[in-house]
Amino acid sequence: MRLDATASGLFPIAPTPFTPDGRIDEASIDTLIARYLKAGATGITVLGIMGEAPKLEPEESLHLTTRFIAGMGDLPVIVGVSAPGLAAMRWLAHAAMDRGAAGVMIAPPPSLRTDDQIIGYYRQAVEAIGTDIPFVIQDYPLTLTVQMTPKVIRQIVQDHPSCVMLKHEDWPGLEKISTLRGFETDGSMRPISILTGNGGLFLDFEMERGADGAMTGYAFPEMLADVVRLSKAGRRDEAHDLFDAHLPLLRYEQQQGVGLAVRKYVLMRRGFIASDAQRKPGSALSATARAEVHYLLARLAARDSRALAAE
Amino acid sequence: MRLDATASGLFPIAPTPFTPDGRIDEASIDTLIARYLKAGATGITVLGIMGEAPKLEPEESLHLTTRFIAGMGDLPVIVGVSAPGLAAMRWLAHAAMDRGAAGVMIAPPPSLRTDDQIIGYYRQAVEAIGTDIPFVIQDYPLTLTVQMTPKVIRQIVQDHPSCVMLKHEDWPGLEKISTLRGFETDGSMRPISILTGNGGLFLDFEMERGADGAMTGYAFPEMLADVVRLSKAGRRDEAHDLFDAHLPLLRYEQQQGVGLAVRKYVLMRRGFIASDAQRKPGSALSATARAEVHYLLARLAARDSRALAAE
Amino acid sequence: MRLDATASGLFPIAPTPFTPDGRIDEASIDTLIARYLKAGATGITVLGIMGEAPKLEPEESLHLTTRFIAGMGDLPVIVGVSAPGLAAMRWLAHAAMDRGAAGVMIAPPPSLRTDDQIIGYYRQAVEAIGTDIPFVIQDYPLTLTVQMTPKVIRQIVQDHPSCVMLKHEDWPGLEKISTLRGFETDGSMRPISILTGNGGLFLDFEMERGADGAMTGYAFPEMLADVVRLSKAGRRDEAHDLFDAHLPLLRYEQQQGVGLAVRKYVLMRRGFIASDAQRKPGSALSATARAEVHYLLARLAARDSRALAAE
Amino acid sequence: MRLDATASGLFPIAPTPFTPDGRIDEASIDTLIARYLKAGATGITVLGIMGEAPKLEPEESLHLTTRFIAGMGDLPVIVGVSAPGLAAMRWLAHAAMDRGAAGVMIAPPPSLRTDDQIIGYYRQAVEAIGTDIPFVIQDYPLTLTVQMTPKVIRQIVQDHPSCVMLKHEDWPGLEKISTLRGFETDGSMRPISILTGNGGLFLDFEMERGADGAMTGYAFPEMLADVVRLSKAGRRDEAHDLFDAHLPLLRYEQQQGVGLAVRKYVLMRRGFIASDAQRKPGSALSATARAEVHYLLARLAARDSRALAAE
Repeated sequence: MRLDATASGLFPIAPTPFTPDGRIDEASIDTLIARYLKAGATGITVLGIMGEAPKLEPEESLHLTTRFIAGMGDLPVIVGVSAPGLAAMRWLAHAAMDRGAAGVMIAPPPSLRTDDQIIGYYRQAVEAIGTDIPFVIQDYPLTLTVQMTPKVIRQIVQDHPSCVMLKHEDWPGLEKISTLRGFETDGSMRPISILTGNGGLFLDFEMERGADGAMTGYAFPEMLADVVRLSKAGRRDEAHDLFDAHLPLLRYEQQQGVGLAVRKYVLMRRGFIASDAQRKPGSALSATARAEVHYLLARLAARDSRALAAE
Repeated sequence: MRLDATASGLFPIAPTPFTPDGRIDEASIDTLIARYLKAGATGITVLGIMGEAPKLEPEESLHLTTRFIAGMGDLPVIVGVSAPGLAAMRWLAHAAMDRGAAGVMIAPPPSLRTDDQIIGYYRQAVEAIGTDIPFVIQDYPLTLTVQMTPKVIRQIVQDHPSCVMLKHEDWPGLEKISTLRGFETDGSMRPISILTGNGGLFLDFEMERGADGAMTGYAFPEMLADVVRLSKAGRRDEAHDLFDAHLPLLRYEQQQGVGLAVRKYVLMRRGFIASDAQRKPGSALSATARAEVHYLLARLAARDSRALAAE
Repeated sequence: MRLDATASGLFPIAPTPFTPDGRIDEASIDTLIARYLKAGATGITVLGIMGEAPKLEPEESLHLTTRFIAGMGDLPVIVGVSAPGLAAMRWLAHAAMDRGAAGVMIAPPPSLRTDDQIIGYYRQAVEAIGTDIPFVIQDYPLTLTVQMTPKVIRQIVQDHPSCVMLKHEDWPGLEKISTLRGFETDGSMRPISILTGNGGLFLDFEMERGADGAMTGYAFPEMLADVVRLSKAGRRDEAHDLFDAHLPLLRYEQQQGVGLAVRKYVLMRRGFIASDAQRKPGSALSATARAEVHYLLARLAARDSRALAAE
Repeated sequence: MRLDATASGLFPIAPTPFTPDGRIDEASIDTLIARYLKAGATGITVLGIMGEAPKLEPEESLHLTTRFIAGMGDLPVIVGVSAPGLAAMRWLAHAAMDRGAAGVMIAPPPSLRTDDQIIGYYRQAVEAIGTDIPFVIQDYPLTLTVQMTPKVIRQIVQDHPSCVMLKHEDWPGLEKISTLRGFETDGSMRPISILTGNGGLFLDFEMERGADGAMTGYAFPEMLADVVRLSKAGRRDEAHDLFDAHLPLLRYEQQQGVGLAVRKYVLMRRGFIASDAQRKPGSALSATARAEVHYLLARLAARDSRALAAE
C-alpha cells in the first residue's frame, strides 16, 4: 500500500534493537512489531534519527526495513531516507519502495537557510527519487536548525503531489498546525496528513489543533494511541488525564542525547525488546538516572496500570 | 549584601511590567515584588532574557534595577549584564553595583566555540568589570549555542574567586550537576551555588542531583519555592506530587517565543502585574492559545488551589 | 546632508584610533579624516564591526561620531547602529542624526533564519528608528550567518522608502549584484546605492557588475578610490592592474580576527594613525606576521609607489 | 604504499569528471591523472568535498577510487571517508584500503562543539576503522563550523599513532601552523605532515610557516607544485612572483558555491577533463562569469604562459 494524505493514528518511530555485542536483534524486531500492533499502531517509521540509522551499514538498513515491512502486514511502513547526498537518498528510496515501503521521509540538510533554498532542495530531492514515491516532510528545527515557515511548507506541498504528510516537530508548533489547517480551509493548500513528533511533549494540544496523530517513539505507545483516539472522539478531559499521567516520564525521555537510552531501557523493562544496548557510539544511563526512571515508572503505575510491569 | 556561594532557594527571573502603551509600569513592579516575596523568593534576577532587557534604554534598565533593589530589601538582586561589548558590560555592572545589586550574571556570546575561547571570554569579562563583583555563569546552550563542559565551568570557577554561582540550564543537564558536585567532593573545584533554569522543566530531579534552588520565571513561583523546600527536607513524594500537578502548564509555558506571553498572561490573571503587554516587538497569544491556558489553569486548580484565582 | 540612493565612490570603514593605554586618540581621528579625504573618500562609515564599536561606551560612541561628522564637512557620515535591542538602536540612531549623521547602517541579528523573519526585523527596526532616517542594509552572511536572497532585499527596499543603500558583502556575491540591478531594470525594485565590502576582495569585478563604489577599510583607501574611478571610466585594464598589485596584501588583511591588526599596523606605518593599539580584547601581530606584512609592502612598493613610505 | 608523516608536495583534490548526461567520464579520469602527474603531483585525494562525493552512489565511489589508485601507480591516494555514521565510514575506509588506498581523510561532523566532543569523535572514528589505517584530520571550520584548537589537534595526534597528516584549512591559519610546528619542536607532539587547503589562498606564506605542501584543487596545479618547490628551495621571491600572478584567478575560484564551476570550466579549457558538467544539483557559470574567467585567464597568460592554451 502507498502512503497517502489520509494517514492518521500512531506511527511509532521504531528503535533498532541490538544485542549487547552490537548485532541487530532479529527476534526483538518481531516482538517489537507485535507489541506496537497491540498498542494500536496504524503504521510505523523506520531509519529515523532515533533508530540509530547512521550506525547501520547499507545492507543492514535494507534488511531491517524488509523485516519491518513483512511484520507490519498491510500497515504502512515509512522509511527515513535523509542523506547528505541525493544519490544515496535515491538509492535507499528505490530500494525501500521495491521491498514494499509505503513512503519515505525526507529531512532538510542543516545547511539550508533561505526559503528558496528549502523549496529548491525538495525540488531536487523529488527529481532524484522520482515523482511517484509518496514522501513526508520532516520539520524538526531544534535538531536540524532549518526553519520552515507555513508558507514554505505550503509551497512544497503544492509543488509536489507526492508530498502527502508533514512530520511536525517544530517547537513551539501549535500555531503552525492551526495555520496549515487554515491554508487547507481557505483552499490555498491541499489537505495533507500531519503527524506530530517532538517526543509527544505537546500531543494533547496538537490533536486539538488538528493533527491526525502521532509519529514519535515514547516508550508507552499505548498512551499515544489512546490520546489520539480519545481526542478524536472529543473526550478531551480523559485525553488530558491520561496524557498528564505520563508527562513526567515523557518529559524525562525528552532529554536530547540521553533520551534514546531512557526509551530503550523502558522498552526493555516492558518486554518490547530484549536489550537496551545501543550500537557504538551510544549513550548510557548512569545508576542515578536508572533509579530516577524507576521512580517515575512507580509513580506512573499508580495512575496507569500498564506501567506496573516495568517498575 | 553581596552574592556568595551559599545562595539558595528561589530567585525568580523577573519580567518587566509594561503598560499597554509601552511604558514601564512602576506600580506593577511593587506588586510583583510583594507577590514574589510572599511566594518565598530568596532573591531575584532582573534584566534576564525573559525580562525583555534588550528593549530597555540604558536609563530604563538602571531605573528598573534600582526599584527592584529597593523593593527586595535585604534580599539579593542579580543583574543580567551580558552585552555584545565589554564596555557596555562594565558600565552596566558598575552602575548596578553602585545602586546596591548583589551580583551580576554573564552569558557567553553565541560566537564562542572552543573551550579556550569560553575560558578566555570570562577572563576578559572579569578584567573588564573588576575582580570584586560577584558573578553568575549563565550556561544556556539551547538559546546561546555555546556548550560549556563541566571541566570548562570548573576552570572558570577556579580562575575567578568572584564566580559564585552557576545558572544551570543545559539540557539535558542532570548529569552535569552530578559531575560538578563531584568536582566539589573530590576537591578539584570550590563549592558554588547552582540554581537551575530551563523554565523549571527538570526542577524535581535537579534538586535531587544537588541544585541549591531555582532561577526561573514560571508563573507560579510558589510551586518552585515549595518544590525546592520539600526536596531539601527530603519529602520527595510531596515535591513530585506538587511538581507534577504543575507540569502540564509549566511545559506549555516552556514554548520558546510564546513562553513569555503565556507567563505574563498568567501573572496578570493572578494579579502579579496589571497588564500582560510586551514592549514591541512582542509575541501575543492567539484566542485559541488563551483558551488552552485557561483549560490548563482549570485543571491545575483541581490539584493546587492557588490556581483558582487565575482560572 | 542626508544619505540617498545616489551615493557612490569610497566610504571607508573607519577604525577607531586608540592610544596604547586604551583611550580614544583624538588627534589621530583628525589625521585619519584628512588622509581619507586626500585618498578620495566621498563619505565615511563609523561604528562598524571593524571600528571596535562594541568596545566603546555609549558616550564615547557619540563623541567619536560627532568628531567624524565635524571633520568630514559636507560629506556624508553613516553610523552603524546594529544592536541586540531596538531600544538601543533607536537611541543611537536618533542621537547620531541629531549630531548631523547622514544615515545609519543596520545589520540583521544572527538569530534570523526565514525570509519572513528578516523582512519582519527590518519592519520593526524602521518602526523603532522612524521612517525619516535613511538606512543601509548590511548583508554580511559570512559573519552574521543571516542569508538574504535578492528577493528579500527587494522586499525590504520596496517596503521602506528610507532604505537607500545596500552594503553588499555576501560571498560570493557577483551574481547577486547583477540580479539586483536586473530588478531595477525590470522595474520591480527602485534604484538603490550598492557599495561593496568583504575587505575589497572582489571589488574589481563588483564594479563591473554594477556596484556604485566601495565601503571597506583596506589600509590603502587610495587604491579603492582609484579602482572605483578607473572602472567607472571604463579603463578596465588599468583598474585590474592596480587592483592586482594590491591583492596579495589585501588578501592578507582579509584574515578574520587578525585582519584588523594588519590594517591598523599598515595605517600606522602610513601615518594615518599614531598607534595600532586595539582596545582590549584585541588581537596582536606576531613578529613573524609583522615581517610578512613588511615583505608584502616591499613587493607592493615596486608596483605602487604609495607603499614606499610604509615599508 | 601507506601514507605516513613524511608526505609532502602536491596532493590535488581531484574533481569527479562527468559526461554532460551525468555519467562518470572514465576517459577523463585517465587524462586528469596524466596531467596531474605531469604538473608535479606527489599524491592525490579523492572523494573530497569538491569531488562531488555525496552525489556518487557507493559503488561509483569505489569504482572511481580504484581507477585513481591504478592510475597513480606508486603514488599515494587519500580517500575522503567522512560520513554521518561510523558504519558507513568504516565500510568505505576498509573498501578503499582493500583496493590499495594509502590512507583516509576524516572531517569532524558539524554538530561537534566542545574540545572533548572533537577528541572523542576521533577516538570513535579510529575505533570504527581500526588503528592500522593511516588517517588525515581535515580542519576546515569555514565550511564545517567545527573549531579545533592546536591543543585539540595535538591531542588527537598523540592519541592515535595512525594520524599522520593534517589537512589545514583553518582561516586565518598561519599562526596555527607555527604553533603546531612549535609543538613538534618542544617535543609535545610527534611530527606530522601538514598540507594546506583553502583553495591555496595563503599557500605562499603557509609554506614559509612550515607546511609540507598543498592539498587543494586550483585549476593550475603546476603553480601549486612550483610554489611548494620554490619555497622549499628558499627561492622566496620567485615563489611569490608566481603565486601573485595566479592570485586574481585563484581568488575568483575561491567563491563558495560557484568555485567548483570555475575550477571545472578552467580544467576543461585546459584539456584536463572533457566536460565541466556537474552532476545534479550543480552550480553553473553565467555568461558574465564565464567572460570574467576568460579575462582573468588572458591576464594570467601574460605572466604565465601555461595559461595561454586556456584563454
